[in-house]
Amino acid sequence: MTIVQGQSFPEKLSVLGSTGSIGTNTLDVIRQLGGRDRFELLAVTGAGNITLLAEQARSFGAKLAVTAQDENYQALKDALSGTGITVASGKSGLQEAAEMDADWVMAAIAGTPGLEPTLTAARRGANIALANKECLVSGGDLFIATIRQGGGNLIPVDSEHSAIFQCLEPHNRDSIERIVLTASGGPFRTWSREQMAGVTAEIARAHPNWSMGLKVSIGSASMFNKALEMIEAKYLFDLMPEQIEVIVHPQSIIHSMVAYTDGSVIAQLGCPDMRTAISYALTYPSRGEIDVERLDFAKLSRLDFEAPDEDRFPALRLARLALERGGVQGAVLNAADETAFHAFVDGRIGFLDMAEIVETVMNRMDDARTASTMEDVLTADEEARAHAETAILQKQKAA
Amino acid sequence: MTIVQGQSFPEKLSVLGSTGSIGTNTLDVIRQLGGRDRFELLAVTGAGNITLLAEQARSFGAKLAVTAQDENYQALKDALSGTGITVASGKSGLQEAAEMDADWVMAAIAGTPGLEPTLTAARRGANIALANKECLVSGGDLFIATIRQGGGNLIPVDSEHSAIFQCLEPHNRDSIERIVLTASGGPFRTWSREQMAGVTAEIARAHPNWSMGLKVSIGSASMFNKALEMIEAKYLFDLMPEQIEVIVHPQSIIHSMVAYTDGSVIAQLGCPDMRTAISYALTYPSRGEIDVERLDFAKLSRLDFEAPDEDRFPALRLARLALERGGVQGAVLNAADETAFHAFVDGRIGFLDMAEIVETVMNRMDDARTASTMEDVLTADEEARAHAETAILQKQKAA
Repeated sequence: MTIVQGQSFPEKLSVLGSTGSIGTNTLDVIRQLGGRDRFELLAVTGAGNITLLAEQARSFGAKLAVTAQDENYQALKDALSGTGITVASGKSGLQEAAEMDADWVMAAIAGTPGLEPTLTAARRGANIALANKECLVSGGDLFIATIRQGGGNLIPVDSEHSAIFQCLEPHNRDSIERIVLTASGGPFRTWSREQMAGVTAEIARAHPNWSMGLKVSIGSASMFNKALEMIEAKYLFDLMPEQIEVIVHPQSIIHSMVAYTDGSVIAQLGCPDMRTAISYALTYPSRGEIDVERLDFAKLSRLDFEAPDEDRFPALRLARLALERGGVQGAVLNAADETAFHAFVDGRIGFLDMAEIVETVMNRMDDARTASTMEDVLTADEEARAHAETAILQKQKAA
Repeated sequence: MTIVQGQSFPEKLSVLGSTGSIGTNTLDVIRQLGGRDRFELLAVTGAGNITLLAEQARSFGAKLAVTAQDENYQALKDALSGTGITVASGKSGLQEAAEMDADWVMAAIAGTPGLEPTLTAARRGANIALANKECLVSGGDLFIATIRQGGGNLIPVDSEHSAIFQCLEPHNRDSIERIVLTASGGPFRTWSREQMAGVTAEIARAHPNWSMGLKVSIGSASMFNKALEMIEAKYLFDLMPEQIEVIVHPQSIIHSMVAYTDGSVIAQLGCPDMRTAISYALTYPSRGEIDVERLDFAKLSRLDFEAPDEDRFPALRLARLALERGGVQGAVLNAADETAFHAFVDGRIGFLDMAEIVETVMNRMDDARTASTMEDVLTADEEARAHAETAILQKQKAA
């Protein structure tokens, strides 16, 4: 396992992807836990929100500010002129940020662009607070091997994985029977397969619960998000596929659990605020004191649970399939899901077609390929997208 | 704090109070975790169930078997003749059992008779699996000081305290905000004060949920059991009274929780089977593999929570009062409650009178007495029983 106890408290931090939701919350936590008096912020990186990025770099006294978009280099340079803060851009800029000697790195650059910089930081032994999902879903074998070689800790930031990380007793790894990932069940939790078949992107967009961005919302509705989390959990906690249970828990108060061989189940609970998990990632194995809403059990009144229906939510079955097959199948599932998602949003395929496309592509690429290099991963990713596109076209013709 | 990590696995065990419910479950756990191949059982002690006690001593190859009742000495002697197992009886026999050099002692002798032998085992540095409640409720200051001097671990066996012990990160003691003790709420959870006023011992006895023995059942109905647990928690985990929250949770699946300063709440859950807590006490800080029912979240479907009503359940308020006052007030609460319980069962006072009697005695003995010796504790205990008797007589006269 890659999780090592007893680290010293981090002093030098970098936040890769500082202007997104996780990035801004990370800086808020850093501020709450002492800010510049306690931490030295080396690098922040963003993309198009130059005003925020410059403001972050200035207020935390960062050494380096990077925009992933070369076209924004000059704007960032101007915004930071006279501050002495170094400015860089593009892929090389992100690499430069990852190479700075922060002992703690928040890896929050979304998607495959987050792979390289996170690997770089892992390689040099930084403790990685992981918020990028592709590192484990697509490049799990490679990423875990890199973390191991580097010798840093890998600390998940996602609420479910942070919960498991908090409930997992490092000295009792052999006594873990299973983990229980909780899932909200999404907005179609109680819908029939027939109802789900009729869902369009418009219905999806209009849904009142969906304030989190369309990709995450639809991933929640199809439970593909949970499928990705199952794959991440396998790599993070070195589990067998059959040790990963998913339970639907609509209130999302129990963030996940670990069941031990003595019948004991340890759970982590909290209000839905990602700052708790971010704070834990920063202070691990200690805990900081932060201003987030506290759980009030009398107020929350009840917690519900139900078994997920893999007939209506095939994503869970596909995740298990990817875990059993290993190799590039995680990368394939992720890439095919993204391609299918875009086709759904563009009105080219139906809601239930997404899982069908993913399964088709996974089966087409079930050729025992390993995922031990970046090239393996990126090639599989591209190929899966192409196969998915073909499958989508066939689906459209058939319709 | 008295909880120390890193102990070596126990080899020599003694079970004080082996024929009761906790004792027999302890021996079952010992059997499941390897029995005589793995552990050496030094002493077992019981009272009147000589057949069971002799059978236990024989099947585990104990060195010493003790009956607390001198009148049963000969029967036990006869039952174990030819086995080479030493037989003893009475107070001195219990002391002899406690003095044997077991590195792990299950302290499951109920009531004040459990105080002396448990203190003896603690004094010589044994790890104590604590199931006797008087040690902490009545003699908390003395017992904790003794554990500290002896240098052994103190591991609770009660499901609520075991839960907190399991959720408590030793390196994060300063980050504990509060603990949340769960309470089933008992059979009168939804009853009005008026309804509760009319409860008689007959109604109490007839209640279908009450299979646990009358004292525990009525303590559950009045929530005096939870009051005792609050006091135990204070000593076990070195908490301020305001850090101890009680929440009613009728399903009793979440056994208790610890809330940290980063907003995280860690909970321990399980099926209602005391063997999980006993196993953890035996294997701490490791975990064993035992055959108990596993939690099935889909089957349990829902968990409910509600704030306890201190108007209907004054026991909780009285526990807080005892904690704030300290000294012998825990011993007083416990002794007065026991006396009032007997008076209730005998039909001398009503259900709600019990708490009133306890409060009267606590106020009468609110004189800042310390509880640093056994004599302090036993004197306070006796005096509280006498005051309670007086208060009961006055109550009867007034009625």
